[in-house]
Amino acid sequence: MGRTLSYPKRASNTVNRYKHRATYDLGAIHSIVNSSQVLHVSFNPGPEDPFPTILPMIGQMGSFEFPSASIDEPLECYLHGYVSSRIMNLARHCEGDGLPICIATSKVDGIVLSLTPNSHSYNYRSVVLHGYANLVTNEEEKLWAMKLITNSVLTDRWDNSRVPPDSAEMSSTVILKVTVVDGSGKIRDGSSSDERKDTENDDVTRSVWTGVVPVWEQYGTPIANSTNRVTEIPDHITSFIANQNKENRALAENASGAKLQ
Amino acid sequence: MGRTLSYPKRASNTVNRYKHRATYDLGAIHSIVNSSQVLHVSFNPGPEDPFPTILPMIGQMGSFEFPSASIDEPLECYLHGYVSSRIMNLARHCEGDGLPICIATSKVDGIVLSLTPNSHSYNYRSVVLHGYANLVTNEEEKLWAMKLITNSVLTDRWDNSRVPPDSAEMSSTVILKVTVVDGSGKIRDGSSSDERKDTENDDVTRSVWTGVVPVWEQYGTPIANSTNRVTEIPDHITSFIANQNKENRALAENASGAKLQ
Repeated sequence: MGRTLSYPKRASNTVNRYKHRATYDLGAIHSIVNSSQVLHVSFNPGPEDPFPTILPMIGQMGSFEFPSASIDEPLECYLHGYVSSRIMNLARHCEGDGLPICIATSKVDGIVLSLTPNSHSYNYRSVVLHGYANLVTNEEEKLWAMKLITNSVLTDRWDNSRVPPDSAEMSSTVILKVTVVDGSGKIRDGSSSDERKDTENDDVTRSVWTGVVPVWEQYGTPIANSTNRVTEIPDHITSFIANQNKENRALAENASGAKLQ
Repeated sequence: MGRTLSYPKRASNTVNRYKHRATYDLGAIHSIVNSSQVLHVSFNPGPEDPFPTILPMIGQMGSFEFPSASIDEPLECYLHGYVSSRIMNLARHCEGDGLPICIATSKVDGIVLSLTPNSHSYNYRSVVLHGYANLVTNEEEKLWAMKLITNSVLTDRWDNSRVPPDSAEMSSTVILKVTVVDGSGKIRDGSSSDERKDTENDDVTRSVWTGVVPVWEQYGTPIANSTNRVTEIPDHITSFIANQNKENRALAENASGAKLQ
């Protein structure tokens, strides 16, 4: 039942190492992006600079044109930034399809400890997207994207803060819309694995512990600002923390092979 | 007392937005890199491809020439990879100083919740380095870097696994050595801040909770491989987990302003 949409495989996004860990499915890739606190965005500053550079940015996949689109349908990536930052100036003045950028994110789910350093690994979920970035000029789309991005940082925060933004806030914020050209993801889960030369060596297997140490993003007790006047921590915050901690931990432990024990 | 070494400010690494959060100190920058599980490394695949790309890699700052160098002294960045990966082939065949790359990492320490979305932020520590990457050809230096990188993933793991690597393992692993040209870091900590237009608005301050939700990398209980024969989890693993959890949590809570309460 149902179709599965995939990103096209181009030379630039085809995974050649550990191919069995690769995914091109839109759903898997978009989910990893949307659960990332930070995206690393790479671009070339200009012909005089030999180095590409990277900015940490906050962003989300979404569709303004089809807001009800689900996670496994074609989506754009919206990135949040400051009006006069270099990447925004480059995107504002570039010609053609837009500023060519790369967006990457990686989440570590566990440290995979095997018999020998060569077989050590992480359990992880990583994504690389290539696409063309342009400034969002439609004010309605910009406001929609600002809400999307704010709520990605903490669920329902937009409606639980002072909105809408005033005109100064609207003009100091710039949203980049990235039309994705290709994308790939890589997912590693499960326990450690080793080569026979080590698994059949009693001296080695008797002395080296193997398995996975799960790791996840743990949210702690909120610490109020000294000027805060809302005495009880609101439900949208406590729910977010409880849900995230439960989901993050379960994901890391399941990836570690906990279900197999 | 003492000197503080800084990276030179070039156009490519000078922070223009939130300048007060910027650091160019080697010690601060190297510490953030060395506490990162993953580094995002950007390079240009070639003239036919308009997009820079990003690889997630494992790496560490260190000095093979002066192994006792402390964290605030000049260090190279060593990155671990597979022999035939694209970045390694580009570095192997490039001319001049080496392959121009950018290394970035960001660690989120808390979600900063202010009165209005525009003032929301993260507490974070981020670094961007630019430099030239070359393959390490000295076998002694390569082995030293492999140990450095393995132990960065889990303290003392190298000596608690089957070492040294055999010749097949040595030849399938490639280490990139990055000579850093410039670098910058950005650190945001403390509680939320808002503009007077909101802090003086009673309707807003009575309804919106402000403060910080700390977040950190939490390590869980190790999950043994079904083939593991070491019944007790070794001390180097349990110590690492206990230390990391304590340090990570304290850092996130202190950054959130916990000490001020």
